[in-house]
Amino acid sequence: MPRHPAVSPSLGDVGGSVYSAHAARAAASGGEVYPFHVGDTWLEPPEGCRMEDLRTDELPGLHRYAAPRGRADLLGRVAARVAERTGVPTTPDHVLVTTGATGGLGAVLGAIVDPGDDVLVLAPYWPLIVGIVRCFRARPVPVPVPDPAGGPEELLERVRARLGPRTSAIYLGTPNNPTGRVLPRSWLEALAELARREDLWIVADDVYEDYVYAGEHVPARSLAPERTFSAHSVSKAWGMAGNRCGWVVGPAEAMPALAKVGIHAFYSAPTAAQVSAWRALDGRGDRWATEARERYRATGARVARRLGVREPEGSTFLFLDVADRLDGRGLDGFLDACADRGLLLAPGPSFGPYPHHVRLCFTCAPPDVVDRGAAVLADLLGA
Amino acid sequence: MPRHPAVSPSLGDVGGSVYSAHAARAAASGGEVYPFHVGDTWLEPPEGCRMEDLRTDELPGLHRYAAPRGRADLLGRVAARVAERTGVPTTPDHVLVTTGATGGLGAVLGAIVDPGDDVLVLAPYWPLIVGIVRCFRARPVPVPVPDPAGGPEELLERVRARLGPRTSAIYLGTPNNPTGRVLPRSWLEALAELARREDLWIVADDVYEDYVYAGEHVPARSLAPERTFSAHSVSKAWGMAGNRCGWVVGPAEAMPALAKVGIHAFYSAPTAAQVSAWRALDGRGDRWATEARERYRATGARVARRLGVREPEGSTFLFLDVADRLDGRGLDGFLDACADRGLLLAPGPSFGPYPHHVRLCFTCAPPDVVDRGAAVLADLLGA
Repeated sequence: MPRHPAVSPSLGDVGGSVYSAHAARAAASGGEVYPFHVGDTWLEPPEGCRMEDLRTDELPGLHRYAAPRGRADLLGRVAARVAERTGVPTTPDHVLVTTGATGGLGAVLGAIVDPGDDVLVLAPYWPLIVGIVRCFRARPVPVPVPDPAGGPEELLERVRARLGPRTSAIYLGTPNNPTGRVLPRSWLEALAELARREDLWIVADDVYEDYVYAGEHVPARSLAPERTFSAHSVSKAWGMAGNRCGWVVGPAEAMPALAKVGIHAFYSAPTAAQVSAWRALDGRGDRWATEARERYRATGARVARRLGVREPEGSTFLFLDVADRLDGRGLDGFLDACADRGLLLAPGPSFGPYPHHVRLCFTCAPPDVVDRGAAVLADLLGA
Repeated sequence: MPRHPAVSPSLGDVGGSVYSAHAARAAASGGEVYPFHVGDTWLEPPEGCRMEDLRTDELPGLHRYAAPRGRADLLGRVAARVAERTGVPTTPDHVLVTTGATGGLGAVLGAIVDPGDDVLVLAPYWPLIVGIVRCFRARPVPVPVPDPAGGPEELLERVRARLGPRTSAIYLGTPNNPTGRVLPRSWLEALAELARREDLWIVADDVYEDYVYAGEHVPARSLAPERTFSAHSVSKAWGMAGNRCGWVVGPAEAMPALAKVGIHAFYSAPTAAQVSAWRALDGRGDRWATEARERYRATGARVARRLGVREPEGSTFLFLDVADRLDGRGLDGFLDACADRGLLLAPGPSFGPYPHHVRLCFTCAPPDVVDRGAAVLADLLGA
């Protein structure tokens, strides 16, 4: 019971702003800054879908409240798209429009956990997911994903070892932030089967679904629609991270519970962002993504080669083990050394039990800037 | 532990979309529809602050992530404004920019309650506050506000009667949604004094601060800055409800906890909405509000006179006791009869223990539409 001046002690384990610790140091370095720590794109959204394209006189209600679950026109286009991509019948009743995938995953977790529950989180993971679970006073349980060369047996064993009487869901992200890996179909099928046997919900983070460079993105919804919530975002899809618009798709019976949480967390996604997303869904977005994908792929592959690591299969990230470059100052010392040369990286521990890893985003800046930053990193790594 | 297909039973008491039940019936009536149930404005935002005014080439990063706590330029202007209005030293460290006041109040409650805690809520109240409290598995405890003619003693007695070992905060909204009343300074001083004695947080909903027609808006922050969180919104201030931008202001030491909750609920307020708000804070917003206030005041007074009730002192609402117009079908029957004539009202129980009340918003449509809707209501009320 936190009375003034105390705040809730449960928040002690919840992270704050995870990426900004070294930014001031990089700025002070005086040279070019390489903001590889953020997960954003340097590209502007498709033409016709930018704020300046949204005219008050053409769009009645542009600055007014939208329906909390989402504008009817957007819900319709999202449902049609998801149905086509997953092969699963999908109507607006399966969709909730949210303030980005962050708001969407918050609505999911708020609906399906009670305080004290466990959520299994495949690791490495998107950093905010563990904080979302904790904000609802539940417990994230990381499950490190084994080397992808083998079959799914090792992963299943690790999941089973962490199942408990209060486990309510399993979270996974593919294409993965931070690793850039794409989970194989056989692994997803095995996880869906396990979830079915154990009565678990599946929470699938699909925000990088449009950014696959090798292999195939298998939507979890296509394998277990009765128990899967999938999160999607215009942030990554079409370069609209600041718009705060995305959606979650799940079983129709459960969506009213998600809507309740969403209404009380953010009320609705911004009206203008919903109009932008609706416009992008007329084909403009897909054309934009096709072009962006080729640019991202080329840059990611070039950076990976420069650093001597495996090319990413998807997403906009590389996750590097830098253990053999650390001295007595540990990872913080390495990140300091990077920041002193203008290079900002995200620390491995934000993504799970990875004390010697760093994440870099290769779409954060135009390719020439990224190449220069990669050269700095290669130098620091002795690559 | 809600495993598939169950969702959290704790959400059973959380309301969903509270205002839309009768909308289909009104639409089917075939005549003009009077959407008095929503709390919005018919006015467009100030020129220069609309989406079409935000040009990608002039505003680098317009569609990219903003800093989670808010853009530095906006934080600066907000802090200066709050300092001026409250007389309390206020810096960006006291401010968190949020997805409207809804996101802001969610961040406050997520930071200051633990499951099982009590939050005293002065009633009638803004409907979403009780759902926000419940989403964090705490318990809202309504405290009906007595007739404003007397001093604060009766209110203090009611608050004291509801204090318990798990009471962590007291919530109040002034100018009030739904009543249109403004809490007198002496009442706020008495509440601040009680909160100080009982170690309670104060959560003050100030979103109608710019819409006072009689009396004086006393910001709770000016009386007890060490324990007050105040919520503000561009939705009401400048006709930007769809933008999803607002802010909460509170003690600097507590703001990192609020920021944690906000990051995990919506990440940040939309970047474009923050730019719009920042522009409006250059004086354009105040000029807009000055003009809107006079229009709102005139309409509210005219509607109140037409209905034979007291003129509103603030906000954009009237809260009417319709007990003597109810038949065996109760309030629902009355709302049906309204909807059959195109008139939509918000039901009293959304705002607390008010089974015979309805709320109307007199800024939801242009004054001529509102006047016609008020005539329909007057007819139904026999006024």
